Order: sequence, then structure tokens, then C-alpha cells
Amino acid sequence: MAKDKKLVEQITAMDEDFAKWYTDICKKADLIDYSSVKGCMIIRPYGYAIWENIQKILDARFKELGHENIYMPLFIPESLLQREKDHVAGFAPEVAWVTHGGSERLTERMCVRPTSETLFCEHYANIINSYRDLPKLYNQWCNVVRWEKTTRPFLRSREFLWQEGHTMHATAEEARAETVQMLEVYASFHEQELAIPVVKGCKTPSDKFAGAEDTYAIEALMHDGKSLQAATSHYFGDGFARAFDITYTDRENKLVHPFQTSWGCTTRMIGGIIMTHGDDRGLVLPPAVAPIQVIIVPIAQHKEGVLEHATALRDRLAAAGIRVKMDDSDQSPGWKFAEYEMKGVPLRIELGPRDIEQGQCVAVTRHNGEKSFVSLEGIADTAKELLEAVRIGMYEKALANRERRTYVCHTLDEVTAALEANGDGFIKGMWCGEEACEDETKAKTGVGSRCVPLVQENLGEVCMCCGKPAKKMVLWAKAY
Amino acid sequence: MAKDKKLVEQITAMDEDFAKWYTDICKKADLIDYSSVKGCMIIRPYGYAIWENIQKILDARFKELGHENIYMPLFIPESLLQREKDHVAGFAPEVAWVTHGGSERLTERMCVRPTSETLFCEHYANIINSYRDLPKLYNQWCNVVRWEKTTRPFLRSREFLWQEGHTMHATAEEARAETVQMLEVYASFHEQELAIPVVKGCKTPSDKFAGAEDTYAIEALMHDGKSLQAATSHYFGDGFARAFDITYTDRENKLVHPFQTSWGCTTRMIGGIIMTHGDDRGLVLPPAVAPIQVIIVPIAQHKEGVLEHATALRDRLAAAGIRVKMDDSDQSPGWKFAEYEMKGVPLRIELGPRDIEQGQCVAVTRHNGEKSFVSLEGIADTAKELLEAVRIGMYEKALANRERRTYVCHTLDEVTAALEANGDGFIKGMWCGEEACEDETKAKTGVGSRCVPLVQENLGEVCMCCGKPAKKMVLWAKAY
Repeated sequence: MAKDKKLVEQITAMDEDFAKWYTDICKKADLIDYSSVKGCMIIRPYGYAIWENIQKILDARFKELGHENIYMPLFIPESLLQREKDHVAGFAPEVAWVTHGGSERLTERMCVRPTSETLFCEHYANIINSYRDLPKLYNQWCNVVRWEKTTRPFLRSREFLWQEGHTMHATAEEARAETVQMLEVYASFHEQELAIPVVKGCKTPSDKFAGAEDTYAIEALMHDGKSLQAATSHYFGDGFARAFDITYTDRENKLVHPFQTSWGCTTRMIGGIIMTHGDDRGLVLPPAVAPIQVIIVPIAQHKEGVLEHATALRDRLAAAGIRVKMDDSDQSPGWKFAEYEMKGVPLRIELGPRDIEQGQCVAVTRHNGEKSFVSLEGIADTAKELLEAVRIGMYEKALANRERRTYVCHTLDEVTAALEANGDGFIKGMWCGEEACEDETKAKTGVGSRCVPLVQENLGEVCMCCGKPAKKMVLWAKAY
Repeated sequence: MAKDKKLVEQITAMDEDFAKWYTDICKKADLIDYSSVKGCMIIRPYGYAIWENIQKILDARFKELGHENIYMPLFIPESLLQREKDHVAGFAPEVAWVTHGGSERLTERMCVRPTSETLFCEHYANIINSYRDLPKLYNQWCNVVRWEKTTRPFLRSREFLWQEGHTMHATAEEARAETVQMLEVYASFHEQELAIPVVKGCKTPSDKFAGAEDTYAIEALMHDGKSLQAATSHYFGDGFARAFDITYTDRENKLVHPFQTSWGCTTRMIGGIIMTHGDDRGLVLPPAVAPIQVIIVPIAQHKEGVLEHATALRDRLAAAGIRVKMDDSDQSPGWKFAEYEMKGVPLRIELGPRDIEQGQCVAVTRHNGEKSFVSLEGIADTAKELLEAVRIGMYEKALANRERRTYVCHTLDEVTAALEANGDGFIKGMWCGEEACEDETKAKTGVGSRCVPLVQENLGEVCMCCGKPAKKMVLWAKAY
């Protein structure tokens, strides 16, 4: 084995130091690298290929639902950012400011977009005149910047990649339906394609997006028992439309304001994949977004016919539309096993002289390490079935972890006891609706309100914090 | 016809005011809009869909050739930009500077990337160690910012979208071959997919990319006789590798520097499409990148069966992989004809009651207005053949225009005479190799050296400017 090739290095064990385990995977699976640009990350080809697969699936879904892509400027003049008061209050403290173009000071400084509601509103004011111009269903794939103090790859980075949908509708009902529809798109993408179970819910008023009437989100439980907000969908009513003077002539020839939504998901989802499915041997990727779905490792590859058969096998799988790679490098099979386990390739196929003789190969699924002998006849169909089984198996494993770590609590003492006994997780508990109780719960137990789940359960009559009559069941957790 | 729907408005005639004609098309064909962000443009859905089609074709071609996509940070710290002296001299005067994050002044200001050589080099220094790590063939699709004084949609905008390939190779020969290969990719994309004839050449030393040893470019002649630099490909030698201390251990176990290229094309190509193919009725799009390839206009659509047949026709074309739209809005056929001519849809199909009776439809190609009766039997194949004929026809038309406007000149007086007699165009003329003659030619005739064509012709023995022995044939023109 060549000395200058990297060996597959050990990563920190999850249970020893989850944060270090996470960054080890980001680096060792070649997802990211750091640079001299503090707080930003380089998304390396293997990581970016995951993002491209995510984009492809979501973009097609958005377009099926009638959305069109558009591209808005990177910059927002300060006066434009200030047009909607709640919005500027929420974002101004965390934007990057451009003050000079070349050697000249700008007459008005501009921020690098942290989100583009203001630009979309300005444009909508230009192009919306009549009810015939509605709805407008726009989406943008781009980079945004938020000047975070503490950063972590994918989870919280000063620059990140995302899509932001911005839509305008004739009626509040239609805009509300869009908000919920896009939440459903995100939820089904997570559950079906990413094999990540999510809870759909509405944020409490203290946790809404700056300027929104309602913020919906999906929350996913990570392996360490903390929650990740995986995507959000906002209903704005006509607040921004009023601030930006967007009006249209309705069917009765009256001048009225349209109703607005926005919705987004980011490269953060890659962090969610890592922390939901990863293990001590590295990344575990859901087949739908894995850059390599099947890795073929030839065994005793110097023996006659092995590489020819392995190549033919690769070509058959590729022809069936599977993203497949055959590694015929001079590393040992053991090295290759470890390398592609680190990279989270969902299915490994081993093919050696004896397998070829017997018309079979060995298939090993990454998420559970299960090994099976599989006939080479109909191998493309079998591989597809295995990948589908992997998807279901990964989802069930993640769901079982979430269920094991979901605790129903009626008092803050029960919350503390549950977390101490079983570790971090989701708390289901009733809430009176007061922000003071959210604050007190956070201060006393460490968990914050993540969302008011759309599917409510009645766990009792009183708020688990103050004991007064409860209004809603809330999902509580520590969060990323 | 509804009163509040926009009528198709007249645009300025090309011959009257080419610049105004150009911006009229950008606006009236719904390609762009302006915003309060000066010098930047909103790329509207119809314009962005052209860019998506361009991306799809080029991205697939880059990947076939072994390139991988990556994502680098948006910002470059000032000290990093300064590492390569020629590079910083070229770009510093035109970058946007970020000086504050939130309310805090940064300890070191950062520019918004005008191009990413410096970031790639820093990364390559981290990840390249051995000859086994080479070549590295990376590409990035992103936005960049250059603080231009005068801006025009697509052609020169403070922010634009592009791809930038950055590659590292073990040998100079391999890097040179990559540089030329990528120039060929751009050239064939322009000629085949965009139907734009181009001249491949090398920039003269005065016109090289900041920090490059050689800059190759493709130049296309626009309808008004000015040249557009449509894409560039640079060979860097090991200059940046030395400045950034990038080394690898070669097969003889010696520590050496790798050799580098970069290459890019931008949203500017959309400007090239407009100015090569457009006419007084609007945009004319090459089929490969047209968001709508075929528009079906039902005639007398209130009559029984017309809309059903038009819908069935649309479904047949869509099933054959054609990007097709059927417009059954309540606008008149004449309005629709003008609207989709403005939008440059390559092929229009009209279908009325009499056509249906006779099992035919009317096909009109946008670039030449030719009308033909076509059988509905095998219509999908016929439509594809027509689109292919459009592609060839558009290319030939553009080539004829270029040939009509290409003048061979032996003296500066001949240059002036040719431009006066025939209007702006390409000048082929011999050059001694001195920058002074480039400057004098520009000052006296208005044309600058665009490139030294790869395919050389010997037009004479002396420089058309100074009369001294000539070294190369140069392509001269006014330029965008």
C-alpha cells in the first residue's frame, strides 16, 4: 500500500464527544474544509454533490407546484432593509455591511442579503398590478450571510447556501394554504428522501421570523437528543405588502394588498443528515442524496477476470440509473471498506473470484452492517430493492431513536428528571401560552419551546410551568 | 381582450438606437428588472430559465470531462487577495469591501469575491501533497461582484452569475492542454448550442487576466459590428502556486510546484444571444436554451374541439421531450404572435378548425418568419427537425453577418475606410507585437486588439500600424 495515501483515521466516538465526532466527520468524510475566511466553510466536492442532489429533488418539486426561479441582487441598501420595522430589528445586528466600492465610500451602505424579503417586495410592487398577476410563485437558490458569533460547519455558518421561496397571493386563505403546502413539501422530503422523521409545527410568537404573522417549522431530533430546525415556512399576512406599498386591482376593481409567504431550507440539512444517521464509523447517507449509492470493491483484484467482472457489474448498475463507483485502486479491500463507510455510501458490493464462480456477490448495507449473498442475475433490480430497504431501515432506526427519547412531562420537575434519567430528547408538555413560562422553562430545565405541533395531544389541563390552564401542547428541547 | 393586460409594445428599432433596442428587449421580453440596488439586475424567471438551461448543458459537459463542483466562501480577506501581486493590482480597484459585521468593525476588511483564484490556491495548498492528488479539476457556479462604473444588463453588471473552473496539474503541458480543451468546450457550446460563431484566440499581453501567463478567449461579433468576449480560459504556469506555496512530491520524490488553469463564462452570454440573434420584433432564442421551444396558439379557440386538439398536441410534444407551452388565454392570436415573437420562442404552431379538419397545423420559425403547413402525423419528429433547422439557420445567418462585416486591412487608413464604408466589424490585420501599436491603432481608428486567432492567416509582412515586420495576425474590433 502506498505510503503517501492517507489512511482511514479513527474519528472521535459519538458518546465521548458528540461535537468533536460531528466535526471529525465533516472533515474526514471530505465534506468541508476551513479557509482563512473565518466562520465560512469550503463545501468540498463530496459535500457539494450531496447539496446538488438535494437541489435537484426539491427544485423539481417546487416547479411541479408552479414555482419559478428568479435571481435577486446580493446586496440590500440600508434604507430598503429598514422599510419593515420588525424585519430590520431582527436582522440588522447580524448582517455584513459593504461600505466601499473600489476606493470610493458608498453614499449609502448596503448589507449582504441575510434573506431577500425586502428585495422581493420591492420587485413585487413593480410587477403586480391586477388580480390577473396573482399568484406570483417565485423561488431563489443562492448564498446568504448572517454574521454569527459562534459557527459550526453546515449548522451555523456566516455564509450558507439555501433556497428562499417568496410568493404573493390574492387572498389570505390562499397564502396560508401555500405556507402549509411548502411545510408539507419539506416534511415529506425529509421523511421520504432524507429518512429523517420530523415534527411539523408552528413557532410560538417569541420565536417567529422577523416580520412574519406565523412561522411554521419542521423539527428533527438528532442522535444526541437535541433538536434541529430543518426548514421553515412563513405566513406574512399583508404586513410587508403594506410596508412596501404593494397593491393590486381586484375583480371588483378595488385597490387592495396581496398576501405573502416565504419558505426556505439550507445546507444545514446536511448537518441534519450527519447527526441523524451517522455513527462511529462515519457518515451514513440516505440513498436519494448519496453521491455514490453503490461502491463496488473487487476482492483479489489481481486475479484473472476479477476487474473485468467488477467493471461489467459497474456498467450494469450505472445503466440502470444507479450512482455507482468501482474502486480498483491499489489500496487493500479493508482500507476501502473503511473509506466508503466513512463516506457513508449506502451499499457496498464485494466481488471476488469465488463469487464470480458462483454467480453471486456480497452486499453490505451501511446503516446496519448487514451482509448478504446476492445473485449477479438481476443485480440491478436487487440493488434498487436494497437501496429502498436501506431508506426504510434508516427511517425506522431514526424514528425508534426519537421515540426512545421523547418524554411526556407534566411539571418542570418531571422534565428535569426525564432528561437526567434518559439524556436529552423531545419533551411533550402543555403550555399556557405565556412567554414568561417559555423563559422559565428554559432557565430551569434547559429546554426551549421548539414548536406547537400541528398534531396536538391533550396531555393534561394545566401548563407544566405555571400550573394555569393550558392552551397547547408544545414540543420542548435543547436545540442547534 | 382584457383592458388591464399589457399590450405588446413596440421596441426601439435596432438601426435607430442599438443600445436602446438592447435594453428594450431585456425589459420587454421579461428578462430583467431594475431595483434600488444600483448597477445590479434582477434576473426574472424567463431570463433565469435561459441561464438554467445554459448551466445544465455546460455542467454536464464539465462533469463528463472529470470536473467536480465545489463551493468556496463569498469573501476574501484583504491579505489573501494581496498574495499574488499582479492579481491584486488588477482587481483591487473594482472590488466591494465589507468592513463591518453587525455593529462591529472587522479587524481585517474583506472583499466580495471578484473571482476566486486566491481562495482556490489557499485550499489547494492544504489538500495537494503528492502527484497522486493531481490533477484537481474543480468548478464553481456562483455570483461574483466587480464594482463597475457603467453598467448594462447582462453585459456589465456589478454582480453577475458565472462558473469558474480552477484546475491543478502535475505538468505545464497538461495544464496547457486543459486551458485549450476548456476553450474548445466554450467554442463548441457557442457554435452548436447558442448558434453563435466565435473566433478562438489568445489575448495579447496587455489584455491578459491579472496574474495569468496566457489568456485565451472566444470573440463573437454582435449585430452592430462590435465584439463580445464570450468566455475566457487562462494558463497560469506555476505563478500562483509559487505565491501560495503549493507543492507536491513528484514520482521522483522531489518537492515541486503544480501548474494551474482557470476558465469561466457568465450571464453575459445571454447578452450575446440577444445581440447576435435579436431583431426588431424582439428576442430570438436558440432552441437549446429557450425556456419555451414551441408555442402553440389555438386559432378560433372558442370553436368546438380546438382547445382539445391543441391540448393533445401540447401533450404529444411534451412527451417527446420538447419544452412546449399552449396559450389558451383570452388574448387574440395576433397579440399572442407578437408576445412570443418578443420572447424569442423558436417555433410557433398555429392550430385552427380548418387545420384540424385537414390533419395539419401551421409552423412558423421565429428567426426567419418562414411559414409552412405540417401534417399532425409525426408532428413531434417534425417539430424536432424544425428546431434543428432553426439552430442551423440561426448559425448561418449570424455567420453571414460576421463575414459581411469582416474586413482585411493592411494600414490604419484602410481600417478607417472600411469602418466608414461598411460600419463596425471585425478587422483582420497584421501586428508587430508591440503594445504601442495596439494603443495607436485604438487611438486612431477606435478598434482594439481582441485576440490573436489560433487559426492564423498571413495577410502581409508588416504591422498595419508601424510598418515594421509583423509577427501575428490580430483580430481587431470595438468591444463590449
